[in-house]
Parts: sequence; C-alpha cells; structure tokens
Amino acid sequence: MNTYGNQRISLAHGSGGKLTHDLIKDCFLARFKNPILSELTDSAILNLKGINLAFTTDSYVIRPLFFPGGDIGKLAVYGTVNDLAVVGAKPLYISCGYLIEEGFNSVSLDEITQSIGDAARNAGVLVVTGDTKVVEHGKGDGIFINTSGIGVCYYQLLQDIEVGDKVLINGPIGDHEIAIISARGELGLDVKIESDCAPLADLISHVLTASGKIKFMRDPTRGGLATTLNEIVTSKDLGILIEEKAIPIREEVRAVCSLLGFDPLYLANEGKVVIIVGCEDASLVVDTMCAHSLGRDAQVIGEVVESPKGRVCLRTEIGGTRIVDMPVGTLLPRIC
Amino acid sequence: MNTYGNQRISLAHGSGGKLTHDLIKDCFLARFKNPILSELTDSAILNLKGINLAFTTDSYVIRPLFFPGGDIGKLAVYGTVNDLAVVGAKPLYISCGYLIEEGFNSVSLDEITQSIGDAARNAGVLVVTGDTKVVEHGKGDGIFINTSGIGVCYYQLLQDIEVGDKVLINGPIGDHEIAIISARGELGLDVKIESDCAPLADLISHVLTASGKIKFMRDPTRGGLATTLNEIVTSKDLGILIEEKAIPIREEVRAVCSLLGFDPLYLANEGKVVIIVGCEDASLVVDTMCAHSLGRDAQVIGEVVESPKGRVCLRTEIGGTRIVDMPVGTLLPRIC
Repeated sequence: MNTYGNQRISLAHGSGGKLTHDLIKDCFLARFKNPILSELTDSAILNLKGINLAFTTDSYVIRPLFFPGGDIGKLAVYGTVNDLAVVGAKPLYISCGYLIEEGFNSVSLDEITQSIGDAARNAGVLVVTGDTKVVEHGKGDGIFINTSGIGVCYYQLLQDIEVGDKVLINGPIGDHEIAIISARGELGLDVKIESDCAPLADLISHVLTASGKIKFMRDPTRGGLATTLNEIVTSKDLGILIEEKAIPIREEVRAVCSLLGFDPLYLANEGKVVIIVGCEDASLVVDTMCAHSLGRDAQVIGEVVESPKGRVCLRTEIGGTRIVDMPVGTLLPRIC
Repeated sequence: MNTYGNQRISLAHGSGGKLTHDLIKDCFLARFKNPILSELTDSAILNLKGINLAFTTDSYVIRPLFFPGGDIGKLAVYGTVNDLAVVGAKPLYISCGYLIEEGFNSVSLDEITQSIGDAARNAGVLVVTGDTKVVEHGKGDGIFINTSGIGVCYYQLLQDIEVGDKVLINGPIGDHEIAIISARGELGLDVKIESDCAPLADLISHVLTASGKIKFMRDPTRGGLATTLNEIVTSKDLGILIEEKAIPIREEVRAVCSLLGFDPLYLANEGKVVIIVGCEDASLVVDTMCAHSLGRDAQVIGEVVESPKGRVCLRTEIGGTRIVDMPVGTLLPRIC
C-alpha cells in the first residue's frame, strides 16, 4: 500500500517532506519511468547533440504575494534559476505561466510582472515564452506562477560523496520562512527579517571556478536544511553529521523559533546553497563564498560520516547528538 | 490607456482573444522585452551553440478533468508537444508541474498521472522534471497542470507569406470544445462527440518531409480557427479569405452550433493544425495529410489575399463575404 493511494491529497503532500517524496516515488516515478527523471536532481540533465542542457520547473503559490525582501515574481525567477545553478548550469532562458483568478487586480499583475522582468535581468536570463490562464473567482487564489528554466551545464558535479567530505552553506538559514510567517501577520509577530530570496548562479560560478572538488549542491527551499541533507544521504551508505554551533542563524530567527517552537533546520530558504566538497578544498570554498556578497557568512557546518548510514545527525551545542529526520508534515503551507 | 490597467482581470483575458493579446502586448512584452519573446510563436526558438531548440509552456485548467476523448493529463502532454511541432521541432522532453487543491482524490491523481505517462510515450517524449504544490481547500479547483516542452528544430519555416499561398487544415473543427460543452452537462446536450485531442508531430513531420514550401503552422486551440487566422494576418500587409463550404465540420458539431448560436470558427481544437503553404505545393500537402490517420479530412480552406489587409474574411456558402474578427470575449472558459 502506498502512502497516497485511496486517500485525499493533503497540504503535507506539497511540503517537500516525506509525503511529497512518497508521492513522487509511488505515483510520478512509477508512471513516468525514465532514467533522467529518476535522478531527482533539481534540474534534469539532457544531452542534446553533445550539449548538456539543464531543464527544471517550479510552480509558485506563495502567500502573501508581496513580502519583505521580495514578491511572488522575484521568487518565481530566482527559485527556478537556482535549480539550474545548483546542477552546475548557467541559467539562460525561462518560461512564465500565469494562472490568474478572475477579479485579480491588474495593478498587482503589473507589479509582479515588472518584478519578474527585473529579476530576470538581474539573473541574466530571458523570459522567452509564456502562457496566461484565468480561472473563475473562487477557483484560484489571486495568482499562481509557473516558471520553467533552461541552462547549459558547464561543470560536471563529481557526485562521489565520501566519508570526510565537508558540508558547507553560504549563510544564515530560515530568513525566508520567518519573513513569510511575519508577513502573514497571523502570529502577531513584528520581526524585521527579510527573505533571503536571491539568484545564486554567480556565487556558484565563483565556487566552481575555485574548486574542482564540488560533489553536490542543492538549495534548501521547502523543508529547509534538514530535508536537503536527508535527500543527500537517503539510501546511501553513509551519513551526515552537522554541528549545531556552526550553523549560521540570525538572532531574530533564533528568537522567533524559540518563541514558536520551530526548528530552524526545517525552515525554507530562497538564497542558500548547501555544498558537499572534498575536505581538502573546504576552506578554499568557504573563503571564495565569503568574498561574494551572497556568501559573507559561509561556513563549514558538518561532514560526511560513516554512520549512522542514511541518516542526518546533529551534534548539539551542549555536546549531545540527535537524529534530524525528514519532515513528515509541514510547518507552514504556501511558503514558496 | 491600456485595456487591462486599473481594472480587474476577467475570464476574457484568458480566452486567447483580443483581451489576451492586449494583456500580452501591454503588460508582458513591455516588461520582458526581448526579441525572442516578441516573435509570439507557439514555441520560442533558442539558438544554443548551433542547435535550434524550441521551448514552450502551457497551463491546463480544463473542466471537467475527464471528458470524451481525453482528460487533463492527455491534454497537458499533447497541447504542449503540438506547440513544439508547429514550429518545425521534434518534441523531446517535457516538465510536469502539478498544482493540487487540498482534498483532491488521489485515485484521480493516479489516473491523470497514468494518462500523462501514456500520452508522453505515445508522443515520443520523456517527462524529465516536475514539481508538486498543494494549496488549501477552496484556493484551487481540484488540479491544474503546467507542462513545458523542449524540442529540436529540424525545419526552418519560410515565413514569407504571400498572396496566393493556400490555407490548409487537417480535419474537422470544433470537436474539442463541443465535447467539453457536452461533458459539462450544463446545456442539456447529449451529443456523441469526442475531443480531437491528439499529438500532431508525426503528421507534421510527414508534411515537412513532403514539402519545402511550408510557411507557417499553428494549432487553433483557444479561440479556434478564427483567432489563429487573425493572428497570422494581424499587422501584415495582406489578408486571408476562407471558403465556408470548404471548412470541414462534423454534422453533430454543426447541429450544436445552430442550436446554441455558436460560430464553429471560434471553437477550440486540440488535434488540428492550420498550415500556410506555397500554392504550388497545396495539393501535395493535402494528399500527404489525407494519407495520415490524423489528416484524413484535410482540406484547402482558403488563401492569402491582397485585401482587406490585416483581415480575415469568409466567403459564405451563399456567396456573400463577411469579416471574421478576433474574438473579444470568451464563449466558454476553462476549455483547454
């Protein structure tokens, strides 16, 4: 029995956590069966007449549409170009599919479109094709945006992750999700946190130029750092150990998490990249990131270990160790 | 003053007619400004290291999800691969973005996914990347699907449309929209019409192999034949004259149109292609299409004329001539 059969789809199926992964495996991979999709990388890698193309898609359903540090348009561009960048591709082209609810304000549509245009120019990509659909009032939620992206691969990730490799991140986690929680105003919070929403291709190109030992990269969006690290070790013959004190987290984010009982490891990010690098190049890559505006607080946060296999563990600040599981449900829906 | 500013988005903005075109021109083209997008072809043509790639996107919001002759999954594959085929590309890869409403039945999700898988195999494409988002109950409508597609161009359309060129179609128009109207059950109709939903790449490859004089192709989906023909002549120094008696229409479709006052020229199709070909090759192309299972009723339906410029005219069966305008509103929303 699969975990989604004969039941109703829940918000947790879209959380990026365990239920999403089960749905992908039991429903989508089983029916679309092909080796490219089965890789489950952030972008598919397509070999076309000797060129390695990266191809990815993402739908954006975030609420609110405008939030500190960004809006759905900016997110729809950066989220997709980042999925190209983390597979070692230079993002070049994106599509833009609008799904608008009847009655949506055209001034907001204009602002969002302007934001997409600005973000595309900033990320160095062109919006080359699009689609507009309008659904009846009450059958949508203002606006949803799908973007798909195409890039050309210029770096072949090594992918032979081994014990001793280092786990790096380019800066503090959780800003995006806390900014969204705050912007929703439901929790009565008034924190001054902006989403970290940013295009990572330039930072990543500096990293890939500096080191030939990059083994894996992924942007920890839905489900946060915990989910990304679990995806790396799942069904692998090794584990990851991260150091709580090494993980960069802003004071404000830490405070909100304490107050509300959130674990920052599960908070969504939109301008962060987790990198696995051969240990000999770890300092070089941290230094390279620190020299870039999007990597000032880069850190080694952990390493690949022999056991427990397939597991992510956290060494806490007081010296204990706990397992960091793949999340089953969702903290907040509609976060990205 | 543009036609969408300071107002609310209406269903007509998603109809494929005049309001959609105004929105694209005044909002999207103005802000995404680039020569590739400005072509407004069914797929963007991207030159990457000497290869011409075709790239397109489409969101599918059709109601009902299952209808005679197809379902949203089949439509989501064929609609997108057809947009690749009509620019002279061989469809290769598609993405699949699900946007699911909380509470949606997982059995239906399974059936739709199976249908996408079957349609992809039938069309010779691989689903290589995907995304799943779930929105709260009441913020969606069961399921919406976005697919983007990549193909490789193998034929350069001539595009020098000139007076005397012939206008062809591969079979009867209106089946798709009448099948949907009937399936909705709102009009108390009980007609036995199936959607013409089909992948056109194989038919088109036969046509492009047979003739080097193909100048333009487009699949007349939203807004029907009338909209596609208007898109061809808009802002051009020539017009199109079509012959009412030459346009293939099934008796059942004709009957429903008479009963409900619909003009079949505006009905959506999902397995039709309009072709503009140099007059010397018109018979050859009709014969080629007639020899293919998806072109048995292919016809020359009209020709490119000198005037009225930028206009589509119809010579009626009784010998009069009337202008066939771009539609302003929408007959039915959520048709494809």
